[in-house]
Amino acid sequence: MNIRVRLTPDETRNRILEVAEEHFRRVGYAKTAIADIAAALGMSPANIYRFFPSKGAINEAIARRLLEQSHVIARAIVAEDRPAADRLEALVLALHRYNTSQYVTERRLHDMVEVAMAENWPIVEAHLAEVISIFGALIADGVARGEFAPCDPRQAATLVKHCFVCVLHPSLIAQCADQDLETLTLGLARFAVAALKGGVAPAPVRNQPM
Amino acid sequence: MNIRVRLTPDETRNRILEVAEEHFRRVGYAKTAIADIAAALGMSPANIYRFFPSKGAINEAIARRLLEQSHVIARAIVAEDRPAADRLEALVLALHRYNTSQYVTERRLHDMVEVAMAENWPIVEAHLAEVISIFGALIADGVARGEFAPCDPRQAATLVKHCFVCVLHPSLIAQCADQDLETLTLGLARFAVAALKGGVAPAPVRNQPM
Repeated sequence: MNIRVRLTPDETRNRILEVAEEHFRRVGYAKTAIADIAAALGMSPANIYRFFPSKGAINEAIARRLLEQSHVIARAIVAEDRPAADRLEALVLALHRYNTSQYVTERRLHDMVEVAMAENWPIVEAHLAEVISIFGALIADGVARGEFAPCDPRQAATLVKHCFVCVLHPSLIAQCADQDLETLTLGLARFAVAALKGGVAPAPVRNQPM
Repeated sequence: MNIRVRLTPDETRNRILEVAEEHFRRVGYAKTAIADIAAALGMSPANIYRFFPSKGAINEAIARRLLEQSHVIARAIVAEDRPAADRLEALVLALHRYNTSQYVTERRLHDMVEVAMAENWPIVEAHLAEVISIFGALIADGVARGEFAPCDPRQAATLVKHCFVCVLHPSLIAQCADQDLETLTLGLARFAVAALKGGVAPAPVRNQPM
């Protein structure tokens, strides 16, 4: 049965990504060749290149899917109807657990993360911007409910996101695998909530002409 | 003039470290051999091994000196007579600048940092404990002055230290070299001050028997 006959282009594209991701998880990012993915799908490498110009493009598409999955989880928590402080805690814990399970516990996928960060993929930048935007929506809601002190939600979200680098960044999670990072995550969440409730003094404008 | 005649053992030890550090900065950690250090000092490699059992031991001693220098800077700021909030800001900015200048701008020393962290040197652990202890002293003083809400200074210091990972950790500073990290550092300092003034809810005790 010829896969090219059965599937639409979109379906073929998704099948390529599924099979490639399965290979990355099993044998690793570096050791997977386009030819392996093609063989597993019963198609020619040339046919894969019709959908993805390079192995790098496949990797980026897989990474984008993994990152977008974390945004879906995060947005669902932000949309819950309960105090913003509780949601902030749940949000950070969920992101910490997602990143740990996807990028740290699965050593093979960790290779991909390292490459993504070393090569400065635009999707990583876009992901970080999206995380800040999700934090910002939650903070704005907390301000609107009177839970948090008035602030610039975007600026506050940027600070909050940076506070959690040590429990969200895959390389740091991997470095601190011996520590109780869930307790640290919850402690940092309470710390961030305290700052948001208290209100952060605006940063002075620097390097401005007098 | 024979160096072994002129110098006391302590002086010889320090000279070895000075020359080794100079080599690390100039040609790099990996490319420096004990023989190079010995040649520069006009002594035999065997004599160096009388003071240091291995190249690794020299590296550790140099790293310890560099780290202790940052503690001296930090403790001097904590001892200043001005509001704890201002000192916290100055402290983090000084540590950020020190780490940037020593471990990031000087690419050759950055190699040493990577090795130190990859090999999990006990001195790195000890350094992090000392940084938490310095933050703890400042927070305890802020509480005593009535500037910060009552808290467990050690627990709060651990959270504060982790908040600043993104502007203090050499690998992360290097990764974000394109960003305005000084502004981020000051923003995070204000965030931490807001949390300390507001008071952090104590973390629930987890995994405890009923």
